[in-house]
Amino acid sequence: MTLKIALAQINFVVGNISANVKRIAEAAIYARDQLKADIVVFPELTITGYPAEDLLLRTDFIAEANNAIYLLAEQVTDIALVVGFPEQGEGVIYNSAVVLYQGVTLACYRKQVLPNYGVFDEQRYFTAGTQPCVFEFNGVFIGLTICEDVWKSGIIEANKNNGAELLLTLNASPFNAGKIHQREAIICQQVKNAELPLVYVNQVGGQDELIFDGASFVVDALGQVVFRAEEFKEQISVIEFDDVNPLASTCAPLYNPISSEYQALVLGIKDYVRKNGFQGVLLGLSGGIDSALVLALAVDALGSDKVEVVLMPSQYTQDMSNEDAVLEADALGVKYHVIPIAPAVNAFTGMLAEVFEGTTKDTTEENIQARCRGVILMAMSNKKGKLLLTTGNKSEMSVGYATLYGDMAGGFAPIKDVPKLLVYALARYRNSLSAVIPERVIMRLPSAELAHNQVDADSLPVYENLDPILERYVELDQSAEDIIAAGFKREEVIRAITLVDRNEYKRRQSPPGIKITSRAFGRDRRYPITSGYRGV
Amino acid sequence: MTLKIALAQINFVVGNISANVKRIAEAAIYARDQLKADIVVFPELTITGYPAEDLLLRTDFIAEANNAIYLLAEQVTDIALVVGFPEQGEGVIYNSAVVLYQGVTLACYRKQVLPNYGVFDEQRYFTAGTQPCVFEFNGVFIGLTICEDVWKSGIIEANKNNGAELLLTLNASPFNAGKIHQREAIICQQVKNAELPLVYVNQVGGQDELIFDGASFVVDALGQVVFRAEEFKEQISVIEFDDVNPLASTCAPLYNPISSEYQALVLGIKDYVRKNGFQGVLLGLSGGIDSALVLALAVDALGSDKVEVVLMPSQYTQDMSNEDAVLEADALGVKYHVIPIAPAVNAFTGMLAEVFEGTTKDTTEENIQARCRGVILMAMSNKKGKLLLTTGNKSEMSVGYATLYGDMAGGFAPIKDVPKLLVYALARYRNSLSAVIPERVIMRLPSAELAHNQVDADSLPVYENLDPILERYVELDQSAEDIIAAGFKREEVIRAITLVDRNEYKRRQSPPGIKITSRAFGRDRRYPITSGYRGV
Repeated sequence: MTLKIALAQINFVVGNISANVKRIAEAAIYARDQLKADIVVFPELTITGYPAEDLLLRTDFIAEANNAIYLLAEQVTDIALVVGFPEQGEGVIYNSAVVLYQGVTLACYRKQVLPNYGVFDEQRYFTAGTQPCVFEFNGVFIGLTICEDVWKSGIIEANKNNGAELLLTLNASPFNAGKIHQREAIICQQVKNAELPLVYVNQVGGQDELIFDGASFVVDALGQVVFRAEEFKEQISVIEFDDVNPLASTCAPLYNPISSEYQALVLGIKDYVRKNGFQGVLLGLSGGIDSALVLALAVDALGSDKVEVVLMPSQYTQDMSNEDAVLEADALGVKYHVIPIAPAVNAFTGMLAEVFEGTTKDTTEENIQARCRGVILMAMSNKKGKLLLTTGNKSEMSVGYATLYGDMAGGFAPIKDVPKLLVYALARYRNSLSAVIPERVIMRLPSAELAHNQVDADSLPVYENLDPILERYVELDQSAEDIIAAGFKREEVIRAITLVDRNEYKRRQSPPGIKITSRAFGRDRRYPITSGYRGV
Repeated sequence: MTLKIALAQINFVVGNISANVKRIAEAAIYARDQLKADIVVFPELTITGYPAEDLLLRTDFIAEANNAIYLLAEQVTDIALVVGFPEQGEGVIYNSAVVLYQGVTLACYRKQVLPNYGVFDEQRYFTAGTQPCVFEFNGVFIGLTICEDVWKSGIIEANKNNGAELLLTLNASPFNAGKIHQREAIICQQVKNAELPLVYVNQVGGQDELIFDGASFVVDALGQVVFRAEEFKEQISVIEFDDVNPLASTCAPLYNPISSEYQALVLGIKDYVRKNGFQGVLLGLSGGIDSALVLALAVDALGSDKVEVVLMPSQYTQDMSNEDAVLEADALGVKYHVIPIAPAVNAFTGMLAEVFEGTTKDTTEENIQARCRGVILMAMSNKKGKLLLTTGNKSEMSVGYATLYGDMAGGFAPIKDVPKLLVYALARYRNSLSAVIPERVIMRLPSAELAHNQVDADSLPVYENLDPILERYVELDQSAEDIIAAGFKREEVIRAITLVDRNEYKRRQSPPGIKITSRAFGRDRRYPITSGYRGV
């Protein structure tokens, strides 16, 4: 006998239970009528989207989510729906998956392994289940698992021991560079060991700082991937099983890392704008590489008619910066404004003359310029209802090479988790599709242009040294001594990590941005501001 | 026989292991030589301070903390030290308490109940211990417990069943209004049930958003508090036990709620400034009640010579606001500057004239004023190396009645968790000690003074209605229907909670502030920005 299982890789909105239920029902009907599926599997916590964070602590929210399951069960028949929801237990909540068929619940599984590291806080909300759940459908014994369950050894084997012939996994597995390879490698190995075919359905879409990349897949009992859905796109697919053997189907290609990262950033911008109801975005274009990349990403995410840019030159802005900014705007077909900042800078200089009398110029004066730009951009954002994008990269965020309320002002920071060298790589990648960033922008030395002939390398180690130090310190938690032992210069290591430590206060006030590395700032790396630890 | 146990209620700096070890050794020597104590008990995770957050994920940090225990054991003899530290297990970390005596470890206990709710993330870092730990000292059997252990039933009984005659508890229990009563009530009841005397040592001091209030105490077997240390102060005390019965000693009085809250705020400012090495603070003084209160708190925390204020009047600032601001500065003896904002506002108006042509005035123009003030204050903060305090209260933070990068600009937000009605109560309380805030400031209608004759009540429900709605929604997680059923007007409830939901993005970029309610924004209430949930 054959079984057809549909994988519903869908982009849900966190918290919008009624819209999510509607989307689930539509997808199930499509899977039943168009794909002739017997079962349709949705991602983890389908009903609420993932992660719903502290909404999960609200009784009204949980009640609505549980009620939605009953509504859904009656809404769609003649196909089994495997749906995730926060199940109300006795005084506790479970991260559960329920099988709905012909108006009744065939089975309900409670997630056993609750991740509480990195960006995950599941032990804040959920109580762990304690047993596997295997149900019979059309004569096949099917086990249910949820995300982290299949990353740890033991759960897949327990399903096998309980008679499962096939495993379904509901997931909300966020993207970072290389994650898709890691995910498939680990899970395929476990499947191979247990000889239990597995259907893996992942959420897709952006949710604040997280990107869920989809790339749902099916593994046969030998541990071979026989089907893979697209990354970063919604897709409802069906796989036919001969008894419990999945028949080989289309495998979407795995993108190369740079292409994946680019697409993750595009999806992140698109979903933040769309899900939060903005009409478009706005950004300051400096003629530098960072804002050039953010502009290209924004246009690729939203279309050129939804993007507007502002050039805000000062006395320190070189002509080539203005020229290149105009070239970028023109190449991408976006409207640009030019507003020189001198009048505001002069006004503040005059207003502060008395209190600053006798002091010497320092970064204060540089910050005033950046903050005048912040005021202009925020005024335009307020007036037009457009989201202001900031253009700072991860290297700058790490060492605090940015002005609070200046270039850090904005609602969303697309490349906040993109190290500077990767900014260059992404710019080159984008130009390989079509040339939109002038070569001179990629080639010239990076500068904040807040003082005469300033370049980043005046204040920081060159990025070729800085970025790997930061990766080791921020992403890998290596100590200063470890990093020095790996061959980096002691003074550069100490300088870099001291700056990282000292600038936690700045990062705490930065807008959210898209996680693409193994460890982003924010919920992924929770550091105290007040800290006496000096690991140097 | 008698036993003397010292309670070392000390203000540690998170992460500063070497300084903390020095302080522990000094306190132990003082307890031994001056107080003639046999045992000295320190707070939870003494070595690292609490909470060290993701520092706990670093192998260099954990190694240093574990090494510090060995150093300490050899450093102080002839008194038993009970010290908390993050114990390195096999591939895992425990939240442990160790008993050091004559250079060796007498006992080591691993915390069994790891809180992972509210501000706590202990399951992110630690593995739970599984058994009680009772050790013999001078013929007395003493049990060890850590913080959350004694809030849950079972652990105290298990110690009793394992032969404990006396219980020591190491704590890092953060302050909120009423917490001290709740803490003593719950623990005394458990002690009474088990008939096991208990020594409770709490950390004291401010750490970013948390205040640890000290108020360490000793409970006899009948569940009576026989000793209590001061709130909000360091104190090393000794209690004599006759066999295992604690002899009655001094009980520091419990302050009334308003006095506790005031002192918590003062300590929060003081420790944030001191532990982060600022020379002083700066704030904008508007003539309104919020900045008046923050000024008084800052002066009480740091002294008037460490506080500087700036008056930044606009065309909308009433004369009485300027007059009252000057009165406040004079009453508290702080230096003030007057910098009218018109030149900068006019400059921006001119610069934006072309892009704003044909639009009507809205909050954009109000925000420009607030942001000009932000630029002035930040420039002074940068130039002088003084911490800028923001003056927004919790009611404003809840509904977003504040300007990002304007009045929200600053490094620390002392009254961010203080609802508006409590701002008034705290101002009156402060005036009851000595009159520093002009009565007119307390009596007049609150206004942002960003437009002609503007008052807060133009945009918001009056605070007498708004604050209780916010308390129910934000602190108690009540639904809109629950709040309406409690007697609040439907339209005001919907307006208030819609504003709370919509302004998560603003709060995400606000500076840290001092938690004094049962639920502050930030790590205590983790909401998605992108959320389709509308509980109305």
